[in-house]
Parts: sequence; structure tokens; C-alpha cells
Amino acid sequence: MGLDSPSVRPHERLAAYLEAEMTAVNRLIRERMASENAPRIPEVTAHLVEAGGKRLRPMLTLAAARMCGYDGPHHIHLAATVEFIHTATLLHDDVVDESRQRRGRPTANLLWDNKSSVLVGDYLFSRSFQLMVETGSLRVLDILANASATIAEGEVLQLTAAQDITTTEETYLKVVRGKTAALFAAATEVGGVIAGAPEAQVTALREYGDALGISFQIVDDLLDYGGATETIGKNIGDDFRERKLTLPVIKAIANASEQERTFWERTIGKGRQEAGDLEQALDILHRHRALEAARADALAWSARAKAAMAELPSNNLREMLLDLADYVVARVS
Amino acid sequence: MGLDSPSVRPHERLAAYLEAEMTAVNRLIRERMASENAPRIPEVTAHLVEAGGKRLRPMLTLAAARMCGYDGPHHIHLAATVEFIHTATLLHDDVVDESRQRRGRPTANLLWDNKSSVLVGDYLFSRSFQLMVETGSLRVLDILANASATIAEGEVLQLTAAQDITTTEETYLKVVRGKTAALFAAATEVGGVIAGAPEAQVTALREYGDALGISFQIVDDLLDYGGATETIGKNIGDDFRERKLTLPVIKAIANASEQERTFWERTIGKGRQEAGDLEQALDILHRHRALEAARADALAWSARAKAAMAELPSNNLREMLLDLADYVVARVS
Repeated sequence: MGLDSPSVRPHERLAAYLEAEMTAVNRLIRERMASENAPRIPEVTAHLVEAGGKRLRPMLTLAAARMCGYDGPHHIHLAATVEFIHTATLLHDDVVDESRQRRGRPTANLLWDNKSSVLVGDYLFSRSFQLMVETGSLRVLDILANASATIAEGEVLQLTAAQDITTTEETYLKVVRGKTAALFAAATEVGGVIAGAPEAQVTALREYGDALGISFQIVDDLLDYGGATETIGKNIGDDFRERKLTLPVIKAIANASEQERTFWERTIGKGRQEAGDLEQALDILHRHRALEAARADALAWSARAKAAMAELPSNNLREMLLDLADYVVARVS
Repeated sequence: MGLDSPSVRPHERLAAYLEAEMTAVNRLIRERMASENAPRIPEVTAHLVEAGGKRLRPMLTLAAARMCGYDGPHHIHLAATVEFIHTATLLHDDVVDESRQRRGRPTANLLWDNKSSVLVGDYLFSRSFQLMVETGSLRVLDILANASATIAEGEVLQLTAAQDITTTEETYLKVVRGKTAALFAAATEVGGVIAGAPEAQVTALREYGDALGISFQIVDDLLDYGGATETIGKNIGDDFRERKLTLPVIKAIANASEQERTFWERTIGKGRQEAGDLEQALDILHRHRALEAARADALAWSARAKAAMAELPSNNLREMLLDLADYVVARVS
């Protein structure tokens, strides 16, 4: 089966296309996660890094740099930077959410402890910072510093917005920009910047990453309620149990009857959940077509991502990024 | 009482001398800890920042820059950067140590929760990163990135070294460099760098900060056992209860009889502590003159700090930094 076959998913085509560079990125990651002084660090990091994940963010950086004709070495550093920031936030997220599973394996906070996850996350964040300094580009540093602040702010906002059933779509969007889109946008933007691409292309890359990230997160939140159709997947309802105000629920609450509002207030606002509540939540979501409405939003963001790509030269990588924007939404039927 | 009176402590004289600049630093800190999106952030930060503390680290940066003749605006940014990094590490430390009190007030993790402390710490760290990017100096960024990595590594090392009674003085020194001296050293070094000082002065400033930080931390660890004399202060024994391998204990273990070794193994290695154990620990420490030996080390580091200052021009600020190096050890009789 060739790489152009439609049954090969876009991120796999990207991975194959960027294989040599991703090998260099992975080597740099392994090198920099080492610590001769504190062996706990590579243990914890390896657990998470080697668990796999799709490495979407570093691939976006590599793709953006290559699309803009970059032929220097620093996109490797930036791709590793972005993956380190991502890994650091996962470690801290799992502490904050008290998660027990990540990528099908027990989380670091469960295998070791919260302390290790907090401190190793800090270590990876500082390592990412060293890596980006090595590029010698103040503009890259500025972009990544701002992205880091947006990420941290979004996480705090999510913490305080959770359980608050008056959360608006506007707040949801800020949370999503923080938890996902800020790093996607920085990942693509720094690729263009390091390549010295024209401003219009840098802006387009940033917009692509931002819109792709938002689409990606909306779909993730949809999948947590089994997607837009009535097929019920595995592991659904985590966000409901954790009382997170995600887009489908926000849309359903906006159209809620008095009785439904009481239901959301009890289950998400007060957290008094009983057997059968998830099924009732799904009923309400379907009644208001809230999942379909959220999916339409995801599609619109995906379309924005693709539209931004019009600024970039037409080539293989652009095709893959366009397909990726489609694929992100296609995950939810 | 004039500022030159010996009863005015050196950090108070520094604070008076640098008052205008510290006002600017405090203004910048308040400005940058704000978050219109997530009000939890300034709440948590204000609790810690406004609790006071001596603001030693930002004053070191201001003093170093001024001593080297700096007249630009960026030492203010760097001083705020250093204080943000310090505050971020305090927030994370209190989560890791499960502390309930800091600077005489309940900790943020107690007043809010661990989640807020982790995420607000991340936010402050990213804010510090933005502030240093604004200076436009890649060298400053490099120094602070390396300091951040050393801090995080030291924290992890402390976590894994705790409870291990075979911990050596060498490991202790690495932990101390991480938890304290790396930021002191970076604070003074970046002051010299931003001022464009000659290399020999930059190196001297770094050495001063490093040695001062080590001396400071040894004394802190001594005070946790009531100091080198037999006067027993308040709140002693926290490190013993938390089973931390600090310098006095490491020195006592190095000279331990078989019976004493069994005692340390039970109380610190296994954490099976009983009433009267702290008193017995103090007896052993005094028997081996371990507190006096640790104090001698602190004095030696203080002397190294002062020796480094010989490279700097003789002026008021240099006198205050020399006095500060004396004062740090004078805290313990």
C-alpha cells in the first residue's frame, strides 16, 4: 500500500515524509531528557515519551519549516521544544485532573507520585526553554513565551470554569486555545519564522495551527460523549464525571428546559451524580442536537485552517496539512 | 537611626538604597501577575507575593546591574523575572512538600488547592519567560534557561535523595545549588550581563551569587536544628520530620557509631519516628559537633562570596553585598 493511498491517515503520511527529521527529533529528545544527576527524570519522561502519541506537534513544526524552504538545523530543536512543552503540560495535567490513565498506560503520577510529575514537568519545561534559546531567534522565543503563558492561563481558567454551568462558549474557546490551540499555533508559526518566511505566510501558518487546534479539541470533547452519532464508543463520559463544561454541554445548557437545567446543575454544578445520569445527559445532548452543533463548529474551524493554507506554496506538505485538517474532524462521524 | 548604623541589617540597607527601583519592580510584578481571563491567578500570586519575603533575589539583580554602571530599564525586568521564578518554585515546592505554612501564613495549596498551586506556578514561570525575552538579550536568556534546568534538576534530586541516609555531601551540594544557589547566581550574573560588564566581573558576580546562595541554604538547614548553639528556636525539626538529608545530618551520619546509624536508618531512612527522637537527633548532632562543622562550611562559602567581590569596583553597593555575605551566616550564632 503506497503512502498516497487514502487509507493511510494524513499524520502517518506526514510521519513517513518527515521520517529522517523525526528520527533526529527523537534523538534530541532522548539526549535532552537525560539527567546524570537525577535518574528519576529520564525514567518518568521515558514512560511518557515512549508511550508513543502521534507526535503531531513536532511534525507541524517540521512541516511548516520545510514548506517555507528551511534548510538549517534549528527546526529539529524547535520540534523537540514543542514536544517537551507538550509533555510537561501532560504531566501537570494528569496531576491536576488526578488521571490514572494516559495513552492506555498508567500515568506517571500513579506509577511514581504527584511530586515527581510536578518536578519532572518543570524540568522538561526548562529543557524546552534551553532548546529554543539555542536557535538564537528572539522572535521564536517571544512566540513560545507567549504560547506558554496562554497555555498556563487556559489551564487555570479551565480549573475555575469547571463545574460552573454558566460557562459561555466564549470562555470555552479561551480554555481550548490555552489547552490545545496555543501550542499548535506556536508550533506552525515558529516553523515559518525559523525559515524566514514572508509575514503573510507566517501569519497563515499561525492561523492554520490555531484553527486546527481548536477543531482538534472540539472533536476530542465530542468523542468524550461518543461522537455526533448514537454509536457509543469506549471510555465515554469522563468529562461528564469530571464536571467539565465542554462545548456540547454548553450548547445543551443554552437551550435547556427548566427541568434540564436542574439536571445539569445537580450533576455538573453540584457533582451529585447517580446511576443513569450519563445516559440522561446523552439523551438531552441528542434532543438538542448539541453534538451535531459542536461538530459543525469543528468543521468550520477545520475549514478556516484549510483556507489559511492558501497563502502557502502548493506542494506535498501543504496537501498533507490540508488532509490533516479534514482528518481531524473525520475522527467523529 | 541612619542607614549606616550597624543595627540596620544589610538587606534592609540594600532595600533602602534601591528603593526607587524596587518600587518599579513591585509595580511590574503586580502588572504582570494580573490575568483578565483567570482571576484565580492574581489571587494566588498576591497571597504569596504580598506576604512579603525579603525580595533578596531581585535586589541582587538590581545591585549587580547598578554596580556595573547600568543605566537602562531592563534590570527592572530581570529583577521581576527572578522574583517570578522564585515564587513559581515556592508554589511547586509547597505542593511537593505538602507544606501548610510559608512566611507565617497558610500556603496557597492549603488555602486553594494543589491544582491551583501547580498551574499558577506554571503561569508565573511563563510570565518570567516573557519578561526576560523583553530584554532582548540572548545571553541573559541562556543564563536563565540554564538556571531553570538546574533548579528543576535539584528539586528532583532532593526528592529522590530524601530518606536515603547514604546521601553524600557532594549530592547535598548539588541539591543546594539547585534549590537556592542557581537562582542567586543567575540573579547576580544577569545584572552584570545586562550592564555589559567585563567578563571577569560577570564571572565574579556569578561566583558571589553561587557562594552566597550555598551559604544561605546551609544556614537555613542549620536553623532547622536550632542553629549551632544549644538555644532551641521555634519550629525546629521540620527537615527531620520530612526526612531530609541536610548537611548537619550527613556530617553526623559520616561519623555515626553503629547504634547511631541504626537510629538514623529508623528515623530518616524508614521514617518510623517516635516521641523523643528529635531530641535524640539533636544530642547526636551536638555530640559530633555536626552543627558547628556545617556552620564552618557556611562561613567558608560566605568568605568565597566576599573574595569574588574583589573583582568589582569599590562602592556603596559592593560594601552592602559584602555585609550581606557576613549577615547570612550571622543569622546562626
